[in-house]
Amino acid sequence: MFRVGLVGLGYWGPNLARVLANNERCDFSACCDLDPRKLSKITRQYPSLKGYRDYDELLKSDIDAVFIATNIGTHYELAKHALMRGKHVFVEKPLADSSSKAAELTKIGHFARRTLMTGHTFIYSPPVVKVKELIDSGSLGDLRYISFSRVNLGLYQKDVDVIWDLAVHDLSILLYWLGESPIQAWSFGRACIDTKRDVAFLWFRFPSGVIASCEVSWLAPQKMRRTCIIGSDKMVVYDDLDPGEKVKLFERGVNLAAPSDFGEFQLTYRMGDVISPNLANVEPLAVEIDHFLKCIETGEAPVTNGEFGTDVVRAIEIAIEGAQAESLAVVNAA
Amino acid sequence: MFRVGLVGLGYWGPNLARVLANNERCDFSACCDLDPRKLSKITRQYPSLKGYRDYDELLKSDIDAVFIATNIGTHYELAKHALMRGKHVFVEKPLADSSSKAAELTKIGHFARRTLMTGHTFIYSPPVVKVKELIDSGSLGDLRYISFSRVNLGLYQKDVDVIWDLAVHDLSILLYWLGESPIQAWSFGRACIDTKRDVAFLWFRFPSGVIASCEVSWLAPQKMRRTCIIGSDKMVVYDDLDPGEKVKLFERGVNLAAPSDFGEFQLTYRMGDVISPNLANVEPLAVEIDHFLKCIETGEAPVTNGEFGTDVVRAIEIAIEGAQAESLAVVNAA
Amino acid sequence: MFRVGLVGLGYWGPNLARVLANNERCDFSACCDLDPRKLSKITRQYPSLKGYRDYDELLKSDIDAVFIATNIGTHYELAKHALMRGKHVFVEKPLADSSSKAAELTKIGHFARRTLMTGHTFIYSPPVVKVKELIDSGSLGDLRYISFSRVNLGLYQKDVDVIWDLAVHDLSILLYWLGESPIQAWSFGRACIDTKRDVAFLWFRFPSGVIASCEVSWLAPQKMRRTCIIGSDKMVVYDDLDPGEKVKLFERGVNLAAPSDFGEFQLTYRMGDVISPNLANVEPLAVEIDHFLKCIETGEAPVTNGEFGTDVVRAIEIAIEGAQAESLAVVNAA
Amino acid sequence: MFRVGLVGLGYWGPNLARVLANNERCDFSACCDLDPRKLSKITRQYPSLKGYRDYDELLKSDIDAVFIATNIGTHYELAKHALMRGKHVFVEKPLADSSSKAAELTKIGHFARRTLMTGHTFIYSPPVVKVKELIDSGSLGDLRYISFSRVNLGLYQKDVDVIWDLAVHDLSILLYWLGESPIQAWSFGRACIDTKRDVAFLWFRFPSGVIASCEVSWLAPQKMRRTCIIGSDKMVVYDDLDPGEKVKLFERGVNLAAPSDFGEFQLTYRMGDVISPNLANVEPLAVEIDHFLKCIETGEAPVTNGEFGTDVVRAIEIAIEGAQAESLAVVNAA
Repeated sequence: MFRVGLVGLGYWGPNLARVLANNERCDFSACCDLDPRKLSKITRQYPSLKGYRDYDELLKSDIDAVFIATNIGTHYELAKHALMRGKHVFVEKPLADSSSKAAELTKIGHFARRTLMTGHTFIYSPPVVKVKELIDSGSLGDLRYISFSRVNLGLYQKDVDVIWDLAVHDLSILLYWLGESPIQAWSFGRACIDTKRDVAFLWFRFPSGVIASCEVSWLAPQKMRRTCIIGSDKMVVYDDLDPGEKVKLFERGVNLAAPSDFGEFQLTYRMGDVISPNLANVEPLAVEIDHFLKCIETGEAPVTNGEFGTDVVRAIEIAIEGAQAESLAVVNAA
Repeated sequence: MFRVGLVGLGYWGPNLARVLANNERCDFSACCDLDPRKLSKITRQYPSLKGYRDYDELLKSDIDAVFIATNIGTHYELAKHALMRGKHVFVEKPLADSSSKAAELTKIGHFARRTLMTGHTFIYSPPVVKVKELIDSGSLGDLRYISFSRVNLGLYQKDVDVIWDLAVHDLSILLYWLGESPIQAWSFGRACIDTKRDVAFLWFRFPSGVIASCEVSWLAPQKMRRTCIIGSDKMVVYDDLDPGEKVKLFERGVNLAAPSDFGEFQLTYRMGDVISPNLANVEPLAVEIDHFLKCIETGEAPVTNGEFGTDVVRAIEIAIEGAQAESLAVVNAA
Repeated sequence: MFRVGLVGLGYWGPNLARVLANNERCDFSACCDLDPRKLSKITRQYPSLKGYRDYDELLKSDIDAVFIATNIGTHYELAKHALMRGKHVFVEKPLADSSSKAAELTKIGHFARRTLMTGHTFIYSPPVVKVKELIDSGSLGDLRYISFSRVNLGLYQKDVDVIWDLAVHDLSILLYWLGESPIQAWSFGRACIDTKRDVAFLWFRFPSGVIASCEVSWLAPQKMRRTCIIGSDKMVVYDDLDPGEKVKLFERGVNLAAPSDFGEFQLTYRMGDVISPNLANVEPLAVEIDHFLKCIETGEAPVTNGEFGTDVVRAIEIAIEGAQAESLAVVNAA
Repeated sequence: MFRVGLVGLGYWGPNLARVLANNERCDFSACCDLDPRKLSKITRQYPSLKGYRDYDELLKSDIDAVFIATNIGTHYELAKHALMRGKHVFVEKPLADSSSKAAELTKIGHFARRTLMTGHTFIYSPPVVKVKELIDSGSLGDLRYISFSRVNLGLYQKDVDVIWDLAVHDLSILLYWLGESPIQAWSFGRACIDTKRDVAFLWFRFPSGVIASCEVSWLAPQKMRRTCIIGSDKMVVYDDLDPGEKVKLFERGVNLAAPSDFGEFQLTYRMGDVISPNLANVEPLAVEIDHFLKCIETGEAPVTNGEFGTDVVRAIEIAIEGAQAESLAVVNAA
């Protein structure tokens, strides 16, 4: 059985710890944090854990894999050292704070023949997987556009802005569903409360012609987690806050018929059933961690491997940098 | 009592007819359309109406004011002729298909000393007026950003795209609430079904620093009419589809406190009551038409006068033309 | 083409007039009301109508059928006279203010060989018909219980209490769906504002074992029109206020398995898809009136004929009279 | 600091354990269950706990208070022994399986001068407390009726039916809000799946004239936790599933004015704001347990003391027994 360690006991680390402690593929044996209070708290909770304040000491121990849940700015260094020590590495999203660093980690992982995975948890959640199945089955027809709203009041992050915090989720979902990376992207936003953007809007254009919009905000009165996926044949609404019907498939659309005698376009509206498929009742984080451990066992590449994590970071970068050389007039071409 | 005529008996004209027939400030006496079947149908319904197929004949009659509800491309010519004949003119939104034409109509109206009003009906609807009161009272604090979603399945327009059809509503509301016009704007969209954009996203930056986003679509499975208004003190959600609580005022926000000893920013979250003010139970179209007729009587300028209608068209134009010379890097400056 | 007349131009009559004027199976030629202002208003709106203040004069005219939309207390006399004069008769719900009168009308109709129909409009609405299809197809399994909530603020009726106003709708739907009449019924309520009950709860037990509950109120802050239908295999929620998904079929339930070794009952929960079938986009009132006219043509019995209308009234009477001789202990027997 | 023990580690016990472990008024030192696996699991989780399989041994230990979270049928015996040994006792709802046993426990508690409290958790939840404040402040006016819906799919209980499981919550809330016990009650239900009722409807009449209805079901496709409170001046909807606005105060109602010249009653409808008060963000179970411990310290009677718990059980009994000697005709008297 693998021996695994966890570094970073802030907001998210304890969730990883809880799931690791219940996973039967691994022996959760070590954890690491600079803060001795956090260490002593978690070792009380999981008495078989060994606590480390020094990351190098953790890496020198006999663990086979390390889970990194520290600040984003430290992902690159921590993951690199672990890979170079021969550890399998799971890095919380985003993989790194730049696509060049993310790409380098990916290369190192391949060179070291170790499994590198990015913690894009949504990719392992039943509704996101169900929408992927609907898309891949062809039942939606050709995809036209996707629109995301991911807003709520707080929780402001100290190290990154709202794009790096929230839009990363939407990008990972988009790239997973579409299987392609954006060729153009723009962003627009404002820092309302402090110096980092807390509201932003992003646009993406993909090679297949699909366009996408993301709205992310830490400053909104009501929580929204709503995504609309429009295909030429059917449409889907994925609302992660709906307690009973997170995915709804609408057998609806508009058909363009042959011109009438007057040469005018003829539109007909299709209105069919709405189907909310039953979804597996599993915890995405547990599925994700189990997937990582299984990939170590089999040597297969994780769905959210280094390349995937790098593509997400690159899409974010393009959106932040805007349209670059190209004129925005292109944007408005149909 | 004024004698008024109506030109254009397509989709919207019959609604104007119904309200004009019930308004006691005017004598609804004439209507005009090229299609004789539409004329005969409406004169059966309102037997005191005189029907005209020739617009010039209508203008030569003794009507004092004309309501124009024809295709957008004809607004300029029809309104111009009416003003030049000394008629007061009500033009359905948008005022014209270009800001230069809209501005010219406005000038002609002033020169002819006639009342010119654009039919931006939402400006006369109780929820939009209530939000305006909340903004003007200062209770929201400084406005930060506004986000609109106006999507549904259909109704595709033959003469214009979804921006000219739906975003015009959002722009009129934005300009009414803010009392200022955007200094920068961008748009992004796609023609999914036919050759005109049926989905679009728009961004606006205003002199006061407020930013806004609009999502408009004719190709969405569920109807949405949701607007979120974020102020430094309070926030509002205006959902035009909510049967009982169209406007909700959230006493919520985030405060930035003086740095702590460690020099870190300190955020506190405010969570207070949610208040849904009672709204007048009136039909916006009836209020709008009555406002126009009263403005003719008093000589006052309508809220949605020619200048207002021109500003809306100009904002649309800026968004469609995009950022032009400016680098998108500007967009991303906080 | 039939010539039809309408008596009663209060709250509901004008709706019947609008639909009759558009129906092509009949010639809507006469109407009758005691109030001359209502008569002159409707004859202005439909100039081909002849107005009568005297019901006898109306019956003496050449109309073939009469629609009765007067106060409930007058239904019996007006319908009886019309049938005896050889007219086909449509009576707004409820058919009469007692089941004995309703039964007598039914007899007279048969004797006179004329079509008698009760205006239970919900029976002709697409969601109610869809639920009937689901029940009859057997896909719900055996029905277990049905629960209705029909509440809102106002509209207080002057001549009847909330049971006769609102619960009549639920009863008509129940009897239509189940095809059987209750063997026991109870009611409970209060007159909160005036002397007539404005809130009431009703219980029904049917021969098949199905039980039902109705909550009706004129004194509730939010409008609800929600019905839950529980079968042994599947469940349905019919929410008449849902703009897009009025009927939802839940592939959910609980199975009782053979006892385990320990002799304990074993329950398993079934969780499947939720399906919201597409519904016809028709006006129930138009379907209802067309059904009546078609039944006159063909001689077939309407779905909501005199017997049906009588059964609804009798169920209401039983609920109002309560359990009388029977001990309530019976109620609590499983 | 008090030393407290917990008996019963089934479905609910672990929740009590978690809260007890975090409460600073007590030393959570012992627990008891017949199942050694449950004991060893909880003592691993809370290493300072001592585990007992024998309840008498637990009572002989130095604990000051005991929390009873066992099957309802055992409450009476376990609580009685604990009180007679001089322990303070917290019993999960309902206090006992009959009102006579509940009343006896209450007497024993007084005689032993020990604190006896029933675990009616909802009475310590912010929305229920807020509604109590609104009622007591008089802002609702005189209460007219209250309607509860508490339905969902499962969780079937093995030892009791749905009334003893779910309606107990509604009764505790009703008695807390009204401060009075019902004078009449009826129930109606069915055992759809097994031999115990899994759906039931209950009616209550209170001395003040207030009436109430409860709908409880384990066999419903969608979870509902909705309560409507109607006063003569204002109305409240308490929806425990609403993530952001659990309590809504509607400034709405109907006024009965002096008769007009024609002697008819005149109703006017009041439509005002809807206010959703901000609620404390606390865990009801933590508040409840802290209240019990504080009452031990001060000697004050808990809000949900033995008398309260007895009244709840008696109300349930009356509803199950039905109307007894009285004719149901009484029910229908306004």
